[in-house]
Amino acid sequence: MSRPEGMSWWGWGTPDERPDLPASARRWLSDATGWRARATPRVRTITPPPPGFPDAVLRALTDGFGADRIALDDDARLRHAGGKSYLDLIRRRSGTARFPDAVLCPGAPDEVQRMLRFCAEEGIAVVPFGGGTSVVGGVEPEYGGFPLLVALDLARLDRLVDLDVESQTATLQAGLRTPAAEKLLATEGFTLGHAPQSAEFATIGGYAATRSAGQASTGFGRFDDLVVGLRVETPGGTLDLGRAPRSAAGPDLRQLMLGSEGAFGVITEATLRIRKIPEVQRYEAYSFPSFADGLAAIRTLVQDRVAPDVVRLSDVDETRANLALAGTGLPARTYLRARGHSAGCIAIFGWEGRQGVTEIRRQLAMQAIRPQHGIRLGTGPGEAWRRDRFAAPYLRDLLLDVGLLVETVETATSWSRLPALHEAVRGALADSLHRPLIMSHVSHAYPAGASLYVTVLADRDDADPIGQWERAKAAASKAIVAAGGTITHHHGVGRDHREFMTDEVGELGVAALRAVKQALDPAGILNPGKLLP
Amino acid sequence: MSRPEGMSWWGWGTPDERPDLPASARRWLSDATGWRARATPRVRTITPPPPGFPDAVLRALTDGFGADRIALDDDARLRHAGGKSYLDLIRRRSGTARFPDAVLCPGAPDEVQRMLRFCAEEGIAVVPFGGGTSVVGGVEPEYGGFPLLVALDLARLDRLVDLDVESQTATLQAGLRTPAAEKLLATEGFTLGHAPQSAEFATIGGYAATRSAGQASTGFGRFDDLVVGLRVETPGGTLDLGRAPRSAAGPDLRQLMLGSEGAFGVITEATLRIRKIPEVQRYEAYSFPSFADGLAAIRTLVQDRVAPDVVRLSDVDETRANLALAGTGLPARTYLRARGHSAGCIAIFGWEGRQGVTEIRRQLAMQAIRPQHGIRLGTGPGEAWRRDRFAAPYLRDLLLDVGLLVETVETATSWSRLPALHEAVRGALADSLHRPLIMSHVSHAYPAGASLYVTVLADRDDADPIGQWERAKAAASKAIVAAGGTITHHHGVGRDHREFMTDEVGELGVAALRAVKQALDPAGILNPGKLLP
Repeated sequence: MSRPEGMSWWGWGTPDERPDLPASARRWLSDATGWRARATPRVRTITPPPPGFPDAVLRALTDGFGADRIALDDDARLRHAGGKSYLDLIRRRSGTARFPDAVLCPGAPDEVQRMLRFCAEEGIAVVPFGGGTSVVGGVEPEYGGFPLLVALDLARLDRLVDLDVESQTATLQAGLRTPAAEKLLATEGFTLGHAPQSAEFATIGGYAATRSAGQASTGFGRFDDLVVGLRVETPGGTLDLGRAPRSAAGPDLRQLMLGSEGAFGVITEATLRIRKIPEVQRYEAYSFPSFADGLAAIRTLVQDRVAPDVVRLSDVDETRANLALAGTGLPARTYLRARGHSAGCIAIFGWEGRQGVTEIRRQLAMQAIRPQHGIRLGTGPGEAWRRDRFAAPYLRDLLLDVGLLVETVETATSWSRLPALHEAVRGALADSLHRPLIMSHVSHAYPAGASLYVTVLADRDDADPIGQWERAKAAASKAIVAAGGTITHHHGVGRDHREFMTDEVGELGVAALRAVKQALDPAGILNPGKLLP
Repeated sequence: MSRPEGMSWWGWGTPDERPDLPASARRWLSDATGWRARATPRVRTITPPPPGFPDAVLRALTDGFGADRIALDDDARLRHAGGKSYLDLIRRRSGTARFPDAVLCPGAPDEVQRMLRFCAEEGIAVVPFGGGTSVVGGVEPEYGGFPLLVALDLARLDRLVDLDVESQTATLQAGLRTPAAEKLLATEGFTLGHAPQSAEFATIGGYAATRSAGQASTGFGRFDDLVVGLRVETPGGTLDLGRAPRSAAGPDLRQLMLGSEGAFGVITEATLRIRKIPEVQRYEAYSFPSFADGLAAIRTLVQDRVAPDVVRLSDVDETRANLALAGTGLPARTYLRARGHSAGCIAIFGWEGRQGVTEIRRQLAMQAIRPQHGIRLGTGPGEAWRRDRFAAPYLRDLLLDVGLLVETVETATSWSRLPALHEAVRGALADSLHRPLIMSHVSHAYPAGASLYVTVLADRDDADPIGQWERAKAAASKAIVAAGGTITHHHGVGRDHREFMTDEVGELGVAALRAVKQALDPAGILNPGKLLP
């Protein structure tokens, strides 16, 4: 995980990257969805309109913070024109986007606070910006009634502030991207070990603001579990939270700022649990006769406290798709049948830690897997998953190039409601799209339930690509709510889920959140139009 | 854990219970503190003044909810006159107490809501009341400027609403005391397994409202970790929180209601993680050469993810006191020396779960304990701890009877700050009391830090017992804040810690909490004078 800072404004990869789909995969996609490959334009030139700053405001900004803290050029504004959802990319590919008037680049937490106070006084909307990888419209430049808007890019907050070897915690600044944070920790023999699919570009602050879940969250906790302390800047002052790992001193305000998506304040530093770089990392694949068998195995593993650190179970359709796209050279059914399951599901289980402990934990897990008819497929497919685990967003660029709709929907619920939720989401997507390919997996397991992540591919409607997905997304979200799932397990609320927040926490819950926002951001400048309906 | 509902209003036990201190323990206490045993009155008759209800209000209450929902008799009002802190008991023993005007006893969550609306309209303060075991003034009848006050006793909310065997969760009503809740779960083969020292009397709602930590919290999580869902009634409606074990749908509002101590709403139901009744429960004692060695062992255990479920390490002074009070027949030093440690510390480690898994987990833990020179003392002292683990509050009644000051202070911080915090609290108590006996233990361990629980015994100043402790408590609290600890790890804020909330979360944090209270309880009737400074 050590990519250069090369993300393009129109997609995930760079223009040089042109991976290709194997012909067999193209054929399979075409057979499944009716799609026919066609070239669609990748990049259109977009020229932002001139920034709307009155001279006096611009001068005050420059005088107050220095010219090197403000970027007004087209390139900077383009790169802060929003996140990386399917709709974001479709809009940019079709030449439309909204832009911030400027990009502010503070160099320290107290400068963040001064900038927020300036913007509150001047009535300038502020979109806090980390890696820019939101897929829910979390960093869209929504003006919210303000005449001006700036993106507050935290990239210069890139320090390791403190490393407490004894307590195994590190205080990291919010603008650090994961590879840079890992590099700082590795010199001391530690790792954060938080790796969502966006990890190459996503930042510490973004993880905290959106309650990120990483690929090893089942074993080591979601990002919110790793947070011991938070420093948050608001127009009215600093919140410095976390005097102990856990406390009974009233409500946990860290948990109020985690997931606040830049609407309550700007997270500038986080004190996080870290761990020693593991001696062993072992990833294996297992095959189960059915999705239900795989779910039962994972449920037993977490409830008996013997779960692997990485847990990822694909349903029948995702298993087939993965095998087809990976190009095993064998049709999926044949591959699975050869291993004893005619319509099986593949799971990836991973263990990390000290040599001896890891092997014992693996043995304990196997005892729980066997009664569910799990068959070990070995480390080959496990290592393949590990190698390719950040590849999907790059592949998305390619699929967009050739005319496909590709987007994801994710949720979580209790174990008892999970099968019905799975069927409900699949049903809603199948009913609202033409011949979609719908693939699901469970990748985060808890004693009481699990996440569900659904990828959908379909022939893109070139006449109305945005309406096509908006209808499908609305149907899927309604199905999730009706089936008792949460509206998002790890992507966040942003703009795309805000209207469902009332379903999630009720009108009174929304009122409580609004009250907090009013107390911390009375001018309402912070990330307008996100999080709250 | 199956005591009758026999808690007295003046102490923890009942008048019939008169345990005695062995003569050797009396001698040891006397030598250590200069205290001389003397009989002090246990119970004085207190007659509450007549309830202050205007006839019209009382009639409206009776008409609206039924006569069986309101108790006005002296006995009921006495039993709701506050909690069970040292100062509470001293005040009651000296014949002073404040009383609610009446006790309301709702039978269902929606009745709670109607009662809250009635009280908001009439301007009646409401103190939600569960087991009444608060030791921080959390259920004191503080009128907060209102002319009338009722205790809202949740005892009739005693149902198991739902048991989800597959998801291993149970929805329990707030008024259930732990033994009753465990009995309901045991018929299905499950346990909640949450056992703080107050467990015989404490309720589900009280645990949630105060972020309780139980004796097996290191292994199975604090009460707040067990909460999957919450139902909270407020004057303005119901909060129904928790659609999945974890979510990225904004701030976690469950974590805002956990620890809200009845000031934001009344928790009426909680959906909790439960587990199968363990096949094995094994408790063992270990001896370490020093407190530092013991801390290092526990730190390694949690950071390497091989911690026992119960972890409890006494410092040198508590180890000596436990051995003296337990009456081993041997002076403490001799006992420890016989086992290789001349001034050692004893730890209790406990494991619970399936037979095979438990033994393997124990072996893994031993590997981490050995390098810290831990010596196994066997299951004898472990079982003795388990047998006596709810005894301390009964013993307190006895110690009060014979003229002792006995109270506790608790906090938590990071591993790196823990030794200095330990010294700071001991120093503050030693400086502010005459020859106190100060005994500490760590009983809740996290990867990043641990709790610290300090018990203090001293000769009571019969002329000014309240001032004596208030000065010592203030000194200890200031020392905790200065040393970077949280103001409370598991007792809660209540009235006694409210002035320290600004130290804990800052002025802005307090402002955020006030904003939430204003949104959910605009009339301000809910538990006035608690939680917020």
